[in-house]
Amino acid sequence: MHTPPLILRKDQERRLLAGHCWIYSNEIDTHATPLKSLEPGQPVEIFSQSKRWIGYGYANPHSLICARLVSRERAHPLTPTFWLQRLHEALALRERLYSAPFYRLVFGESDGLPGLIVDRYGDRLAVQITTAGMERVRGEILAALEQVLRPTAIVLRNDTAVRELEGLATSVETLLDTTDADWTLTEQGLEFAIDPLHGQKTGWFFDQAENRARLARYGVGERVLDVCSYVGAWGLRAAALGATEVTCVDTSATALERLTANAERNGLAARVRTHQGDAFEVLRELREQGRRFDTVLLDPPAFIKRRKDEKDGTAAYQRLNRLGLDLLEPGGLLVTSSCSFHMSREGFQRIVLQAGQRADRRLQLLEIGQQGPDHPVHPAIAETAYLKTLFVRALPAA
Amino acid sequence: MHTPPLILRKDQERRLLAGHCWIYSNEIDTHATPLKSLEPGQPVEIFSQSKRWIGYGYANPHSLICARLVSRERAHPLTPTFWLQRLHEALALRERLYSAPFYRLVFGESDGLPGLIVDRYGDRLAVQITTAGMERVRGEILAALEQVLRPTAIVLRNDTAVRELEGLATSVETLLDTTDADWTLTEQGLEFAIDPLHGQKTGWFFDQAENRARLARYGVGERVLDVCSYVGAWGLRAAALGATEVTCVDTSATALERLTANAERNGLAARVRTHQGDAFEVLRELREQGRRFDTVLLDPPAFIKRRKDEKDGTAAYQRLNRLGLDLLEPGGLLVTSSCSFHMSREGFQRIVLQAGQRADRRLQLLEIGQQGPDHPVHPAIAETAYLKTLFVRALPAA
Repeated sequence: MHTPPLILRKDQERRLLAGHCWIYSNEIDTHATPLKSLEPGQPVEIFSQSKRWIGYGYANPHSLICARLVSRERAHPLTPTFWLQRLHEALALRERLYSAPFYRLVFGESDGLPGLIVDRYGDRLAVQITTAGMERVRGEILAALEQVLRPTAIVLRNDTAVRELEGLATSVETLLDTTDADWTLTEQGLEFAIDPLHGQKTGWFFDQAENRARLARYGVGERVLDVCSYVGAWGLRAAALGATEVTCVDTSATALERLTANAERNGLAARVRTHQGDAFEVLRELREQGRRFDTVLLDPPAFIKRRKDEKDGTAAYQRLNRLGLDLLEPGGLLVTSSCSFHMSREGFQRIVLQAGQRADRRLQLLEIGQQGPDHPVHPAIAETAYLKTLFVRALPAA
Repeated sequence: MHTPPLILRKDQERRLLAGHCWIYSNEIDTHATPLKSLEPGQPVEIFSQSKRWIGYGYANPHSLICARLVSRERAHPLTPTFWLQRLHEALALRERLYSAPFYRLVFGESDGLPGLIVDRYGDRLAVQITTAGMERVRGEILAALEQVLRPTAIVLRNDTAVRELEGLATSVETLLDTTDADWTLTEQGLEFAIDPLHGQKTGWFFDQAENRARLARYGVGERVLDVCSYVGAWGLRAAALGATEVTCVDTSATALERLTANAERNGLAARVRTHQGDAFEVLRELREQGRRFDTVLLDPPAFIKRRKDEKDGTAAYQRLNRLGLDLLEPGGLLVTSSCSFHMSREGFQRIVLQAGQRADRRLQLLEIGQQGPDHPVHPAIAETAYLKTLFVRALPAA
């Protein structure tokens, strides 16, 4: 099978040689490689202008990211064996780090598999394919997953908006066992039921598992406020750590129903209250009622999804953190997250500092957590590092 | 007792109101407050140009940082009661976070006590006073420490070069029990003897304790290289986690003698080898011998102590990380630290990425650790965040 070449413009191989793997259309020599000659998902061999061989990858002329470099070794083209080997590599890391099989198994570029996300729920897998190049080898990828992991069920969560940028259709499919759509996972001794077909992400936020585990280190006190609680990952952790009064706030009634069921499942229902509504409104209400908490957990959805949301998103983070601090007992713990890539770590720290000034608290920053190691960061691709979780002690002014 | 005012120039209160606590000479209205009128260590009341009351602090006309803001509440001047209250606040955090009394108890500005460092070794304290303002209240501080902690011994490690910047003499003094200079501490079940009179810092690097504890999460394999091992905190942790062959490298023969004694104390001597010499030379030797390790730990002293060291220091970090990666088995773990404030987190990440390119390894950044929560970061004072520890998986090229 002939793999067509993709020739870069002069000096455009530098970023790739420095470790990145994305190629934009303006980096391609379109005389030598007309974009029209490339089909969506087309495998390519990437060369510099001076015909230096760079690597194997795949193209998509309709996408902003016009091609992605996948293999840098000439002896390793993108064959079924190659995908299998990358999958083994990804699995080896998780098996080294996790005692139970619940984690993100493949995190795209960071695992050398651009366009592929796999979350593992024991014997069941939730898979997301986000590029035409990966879509083209979907059969090979699924075969590799079946060979290595022998899953009893696979859900293809191909309903993400990023597929549209690649010109791909969106859908949700169930493969293998299609009868049981109620999946469970355990995290540090707690059991949760999740919805792989309709839930956020693939039903669970594995990326925060490490930060939730760290709550044990800091302690949470008696009264805990869990804002944007979703199905209870943070709130039930707090209850399991001894909090007697956990107030969980979310806009989604469905998520809160699941949360209540998860609380019952773990014998924690008596410690947990849910509060359906807009986070900002509920927090203002609680403030007016004079409620105070020993720990406040803020884990909102990305307020800055695109660069253009920056101003509004920043303001939203400011308001939320101010409200959170107002509701915190002096000496209490604020655990505040941003999963917006466009919100920098420094920027987020500044926002929390300002919220502290306005709430008249002295803040001590105890730790900045990141996404867990099942979401490794590709050190050359800034976009792969997105989660910031600040553990903050808030002291009275003085 | 009259506390003289220190009047700021127009608009120079802004940084202070935003949370910072340092005042430089060019921010002071020297007509209203001639620097000559201030004695080193002099308590002051800080006012804006428009006579807005900002806070209580202390001055030192001979220092680059001409004054430090300490209390922002008019009802809380710098009295013995105030120091006592700050000390209680610092202790409350550590008692919440640590099951054994071995930690940094006071971390200067971050604990609202600028100019004071206290390390706690059980009943013994190592104290460092770095400003004239703190030196002036030394008696009150020591009295507060004795009242709250009832220590059996105090070592004053006032031999740091930063005292000279404040015009203070350097010395090491022992108070209370002066007979026993061999102190011990436990960290996660291991016992170490340290030298509080002559050791680096106060004899121990508490700031890395959290990152060392995290080694358990990542696993270290059989063969471990511990570079700039000092008295064995990292290396013996690796041995305790199951490594059978730990090679510890340090320039200091005294440190390595202590390391060997610490290994014996914990029954780990058979797993540990020491190698005295310059880290770069020893690592090159090991590379020439074809030695390979499952985990490489790099924890060098600050290569960039001042901004002017930036170029040389950066080059030193590059060389060390390249050597470390060359010595690492494919798939192995690199745990690499920089404690230079002038080396940014992003800059250090870039250096490690480049070292990976040169060593022909694909790197996955699993986590970036910081100084532990007994060294809290003051979110308005960038200088209080200095430690970066990268946990990196190094895969073969492909």
